[in-house]
Amino acid sequence: MTTPVNNPIKKNQGLEGIVAATTAISKVEGNLGRLIYRGYNIHDLAKTVTFEEVAHLLWAGHLPNRTELTHLKEKLAAQRTLTPAVITVLRTLPATAEPMDVLRTVVSADGATGGISGTPTLDQAIALTARIPLILAAFARLRQGLEPLESRAGLGHAATYLYLLNGQVPSEAQERALNAYLVMLADHGMNASTFTARVVASTQSDLASSVVAAIGALKGPLHGGAPSKVKDMLEEIQAAGGKEGAENWLRNALENGTVLMGFGHRVYKTVDPRAEELKGMAELASPQEFGFAAYVEELALKLLAEYKPNRKLYTNVEYYSAVLLGSLGLPGDFFTPTFAASRVAGWTAHILEQAANNRIIRPESDYTGPETAVFVPLAER
Amino acid sequence: MTTPVNNPIKKNQGLEGIVAATTAISKVEGNLGRLIYRGYNIHDLAKTVTFEEVAHLLWAGHLPNRTELTHLKEKLAAQRTLTPAVITVLRTLPATAEPMDVLRTVVSADGATGGISGTPTLDQAIALTARIPLILAAFARLRQGLEPLESRAGLGHAATYLYLLNGQVPSEAQERALNAYLVMLADHGMNASTFTARVVASTQSDLASSVVAAIGALKGPLHGGAPSKVKDMLEEIQAAGGKEGAENWLRNALENGTVLMGFGHRVYKTVDPRAEELKGMAELASPQEFGFAAYVEELALKLLAEYKPNRKLYTNVEYYSAVLLGSLGLPGDFFTPTFAASRVAGWTAHILEQAANNRIIRPESDYTGPETAVFVPLAER
Repeated sequence: MTTPVNNPIKKNQGLEGIVAATTAISKVEGNLGRLIYRGYNIHDLAKTVTFEEVAHLLWAGHLPNRTELTHLKEKLAAQRTLTPAVITVLRTLPATAEPMDVLRTVVSADGATGGISGTPTLDQAIALTARIPLILAAFARLRQGLEPLESRAGLGHAATYLYLLNGQVPSEAQERALNAYLVMLADHGMNASTFTARVVASTQSDLASSVVAAIGALKGPLHGGAPSKVKDMLEEIQAAGGKEGAENWLRNALENGTVLMGFGHRVYKTVDPRAEELKGMAELASPQEFGFAAYVEELALKLLAEYKPNRKLYTNVEYYSAVLLGSLGLPGDFFTPTFAASRVAGWTAHILEQAANNRIIRPESDYTGPETAVFVPLAER
Repeated sequence: MTTPVNNPIKKNQGLEGIVAATTAISKVEGNLGRLIYRGYNIHDLAKTVTFEEVAHLLWAGHLPNRTELTHLKEKLAAQRTLTPAVITVLRTLPATAEPMDVLRTVVSADGATGGISGTPTLDQAIALTARIPLILAAFARLRQGLEPLESRAGLGHAATYLYLLNGQVPSEAQERALNAYLVMLADHGMNASTFTARVVASTQSDLASSVVAAIGALKGPLHGGAPSKVKDMLEEIQAAGGKEGAENWLRNALENGTVLMGFGHRVYKTVDPRAEELKGMAELASPQEFGFAAYVEELALKLLAEYKPNRKLYTNVEYYSAVLLGSLGLPGDFFTPTFAASRVAGWTAHILEQAANNRIIRPESDYTGPETAVFVPLAER
């Protein structure tokens, strides 16, 4: 079997610049380096609100008052449990499985066992958002030969995740760092996974199907699947002589055409506002790891300007995501799943928005194959 | 929590008329009622080729010669097996689970257990195509309290599925009918599930993630999830007096605003060429059920022209799909999963095409929320 030659990329193929949906949830202004959630600048939220408040904002359109927040926290707490069937699926998947594949499978199993079907509802969004940290932490422990833990009453969303992973209530600094990460990654306009979720929801499929699809899209290295590569790069530079060897390592990489991980973004043509906030948070969470990462960043930006003067490459969200999540003790293959634990708030907000005012998303394609082929029976081929 | 009011639908929201990708795989001409697979008119293929030949055509760009076909059949046969982990997942899901949810979960588990990851390959496409009938048939039996069967050597793809479902080698007429169905549903331009698969693949995610996402999209009633409703409708009409009560039933439905299932299509503004072929096949497979369905169809088309003279509604692919699959003994909730067993050939062809010449699919959105909101701390809200 030979694969036919493909045509060169046409401009529309990435839908760049094409408006695929209207949304009142978030807005990304790539040229200004500005991200807003329902009117709030991300810089106003990063250090001031909890993930629960942001999830409420994305879902309901406004920040919760104290009563609303208490109510949401109670609902999340009530959903912090996995069914026996879901736990069996978790135990059945091999310890070597990729955590994103595990998350995709177990969220799907959760949907299949009756938790999430029919027309998408806010309660389903809350349930799924509550359970993703449980699923991830349970797998992290199972693959180490440890038993999953029960949630502990009184902990918030970020602290629950760290507690379930490590069996220890996190420090305030750790909780704040993860919370800030979860706040900042929760939505980002019509990115590929959110768009995937909306396309699936537009067929009137259910919330679990839409989120499962989004997890699959987030897994791709061109979308959410690369932050662990930043970690790998920093570790390689560390191993190659640390600060002293860094310039050499980076120049070698640039001269050999190796892509430096954590720089450049499809949408942002200036500083990614999330990268700025994450940088500050990473510094607080782990001054030592931060120091090395900041040194490499500065050097990399200088060399990128030298080697690729026309590209305008800035530090992207993955760079300090990797530093921050690494400093919290998360293994590299849990960076993208933890991204999902945040983005699920945005995905479900978009699914509810799509479902409330739906039209099936069904584009056209340009056919470039043969117009006519004459059929020949098998015996004569 | 109150959900904010949404804006009215903008024209672009469904990406109608927007070219999202170039493809050499299939072309749908809605105004002409014409569907081609890599140049071959569907009417030339429907009764002449096996599903295996069509899968080869979609994947490789040409119909196989005898050597190529033998080779492909051997590869499919070698993949007709499920791993113990996948079987455990199947046994863990409740008998009441929706078959589409089961398929989504088990294909995901198959990907997670190491069968399908990394850059999409043709061998992965073959493996997944081979296994979907096994997964579906195993669940169909498990939920009846029966043990799954082993595949039987020497049977083709369509016959294997019927054998695994029923424990009997199908008659030639049954095999031909299912084969024709599988051939005709295997691809259809940039439909919502295929588009979903391409969006996921465009992030450089893996083939399992892309197919899992597509299954979720196909589940939606606006895409693949409605053929069982045709069956329900025909059964209701049968129960309400059969042929004699049909006109009354249909007039009542139209006067009460009930949508008649199996008529109208987003793309086709004339007869769907697949509906024509499926009609012929359904007549051969089950003359009696066909007779009643054809009677209702004729009446429905007459009444639709009377009640909705401006709509140009034609019989769509779901109508005779339901008749054909029902006559083969498939339960209604297996109609859409069987659609997936066919469309997986197209999905995987599109995933391979996307991966071979990729650009991330990342559209824009129109933000309609507030531009600025003033942050107020929780204590003051």
